[in-house]
Amino acid sequence: MPPNQTPWKRLIRFIALEDGQVHIGEPVDPQLDVGLAYHDNAPVKAYEILGDALNPSTASLTKNLLTVKTLLSPLSREQVGLVRCLGLNYADHAAEANLAKPAFPILFYKPASTLIAPGAPISIPAVAQPVEEHLPDYEVELAVVIGKAAKDVSQDEALDYILGYTGANDVSFRKHQMAVSQWGFSKSFDNTNPLGPCLVSSSTLRDPQVVRLHCEVNGRVLQDGTTAEQIFNVRQTIAFLSQGTTLAPGTVILTGTPKGVGFVKKPAVHLRHGDEVRVWVGNGIGTMVNKVQEEQRGVGDGSKL
Amino acid sequence: MPPNQTPWKRLIRFIALEDGQVHIGEPVDPQLDVGLAYHDNAPVKAYEILGDALNPSTASLTKNLLTVKTLLSPLSREQVGLVRCLGLNYADHAAEANLAKPAFPILFYKPASTLIAPGAPISIPAVAQPVEEHLPDYEVELAVVIGKAAKDVSQDEALDYILGYTGANDVSFRKHQMAVSQWGFSKSFDNTNPLGPCLVSSSTLRDPQVVRLHCEVNGRVLQDGTTAEQIFNVRQTIAFLSQGTTLAPGTVILTGTPKGVGFVKKPAVHLRHGDEVRVWVGNGIGTMVNKVQEEQRGVGDGSKL
Repeated sequence: MPPNQTPWKRLIRFIALEDGQVHIGEPVDPQLDVGLAYHDNAPVKAYEILGDALNPSTASLTKNLLTVKTLLSPLSREQVGLVRCLGLNYADHAAEANLAKPAFPILFYKPASTLIAPGAPISIPAVAQPVEEHLPDYEVELAVVIGKAAKDVSQDEALDYILGYTGANDVSFRKHQMAVSQWGFSKSFDNTNPLGPCLVSSSTLRDPQVVRLHCEVNGRVLQDGTTAEQIFNVRQTIAFLSQGTTLAPGTVILTGTPKGVGFVKKPAVHLRHGDEVRVWVGNGIGTMVNKVQEEQRGVGDGSKL
Repeated sequence: MPPNQTPWKRLIRFIALEDGQVHIGEPVDPQLDVGLAYHDNAPVKAYEILGDALNPSTASLTKNLLTVKTLLSPLSREQVGLVRCLGLNYADHAAEANLAKPAFPILFYKPASTLIAPGAPISIPAVAQPVEEHLPDYEVELAVVIGKAAKDVSQDEALDYILGYTGANDVSFRKHQMAVSQWGFSKSFDNTNPLGPCLVSSSTLRDPQVVRLHCEVNGRVLQDGTTAEQIFNVRQTIAFLSQGTTLAPGTVILTGTPKGVGFVKKPAVHLRHGDEVRVWVGNGIGTMVNKVQEEQRGVGDGSKL
């Protein structure tokens, strides 16, 4: 079986009603938007996957039926380790931000402690400044999950290293992002990056450049794009990032966001406590609905420098 | 026992001559520069530490003697997960680079796959450009290792969250670093970041702002600085980075490099195949000697974008 031939087409990770344990499975209904069904408290049935779902040669799809109690991201934080992200990778987004198209992919990282499940609250930290000044913003993205170790991979072979695709909301704190040259701090806050809901296998989603992406806040559509606008397509991205660098199995690459982000809108749109953010990614990946929630002010004084 | 009261003062991780297994231990000679002794093939004896060395309440120092066969970094890649780094954090380095002092700590990340042991080769990837155009550069740094989960920590309490200190060489590829705004790609190459040799406990090294740092290439002294020049001291750095963000036990923070880096020298100094790079960090942390080694050209074509 080639590495991208998985015994599953759409993988979800969840806590099952039947035993309260974490399982991986495939939704029975191939058309179901699992994230929406879950949000609406409709029962979601899934066929259990046994073995290591991320290692096709050891995984098998059973006919055991389980019911989703709590939907999780398709990968755990431990499996991801750290998140690779591209900045400014859509032509329409570069144009709206009045920035030149980059000559090379712009790579930055965030820790896996940012990741949250579909349905979990997006946490706005109190930090030291008044909360409204973080300027938190949404960014719907297509996320690539690597299935076998990739190093110095050619563009022709790049898609063979992909296990599947899922969705992400790379929530960004613009105040901090603009304060210094590197985006590390502004993209690192705990519990800020929804990941999911389905991991669609790369043998099911064969062309990652025709995927639609959509984001709405409190019912207002703010992003409605397509991966056709990517400056560096998925093949180029994997070939470039794998230069001299091993992309281990479980590597997650967020491939950038299309136009429509909040900070360039007039007037600007920023996320606030109580907002409901929906990101939808096409080709069976589905919807994540996450509410925005302010954290209590911590005791730190790190901003008093 | 307070979290920063460890049963060891200087921890090393190594493969023992006696059984070929990985052990942690404390050098018998409290003055010995383990990295230099190892490089000179002198026998290094260490008292074995049992239990979880990173968790003082479960660790104990025994009187079992072991001999170092191969010195490793004090933490494994799995323990580190990802590496946090500060850019432009020394006043003397900002001055030599003709850059303004940053208003906030400049945080960026690199994957743990960059980490190598004292004595292991620093790998210069072939990538696509001619190797001499990567412009690889050395950066000696003091590395902080977090011992208990830190979030919203005050500057007054910050040092209580530190398990210990070690040394690092944040080898940087200036060609790639200057090509785009974010430093993620240029700091990510496999096997490029020596970490070690000793982890000196924070109860032994009580003031992290008096540590000397030194780097030489082929016997020529190129950096000779002190952490007194840090723009954001270790207390401020931990307080700032922990805002809204959990720094988990095992978190490694490279706190920046002093003046003397290669790319600002006239003429510029860049690392080449066969160079011997020595970084020394004071207060018992010690020396790492690493040779520079070019990788073979891979089959990728990622730079043909």
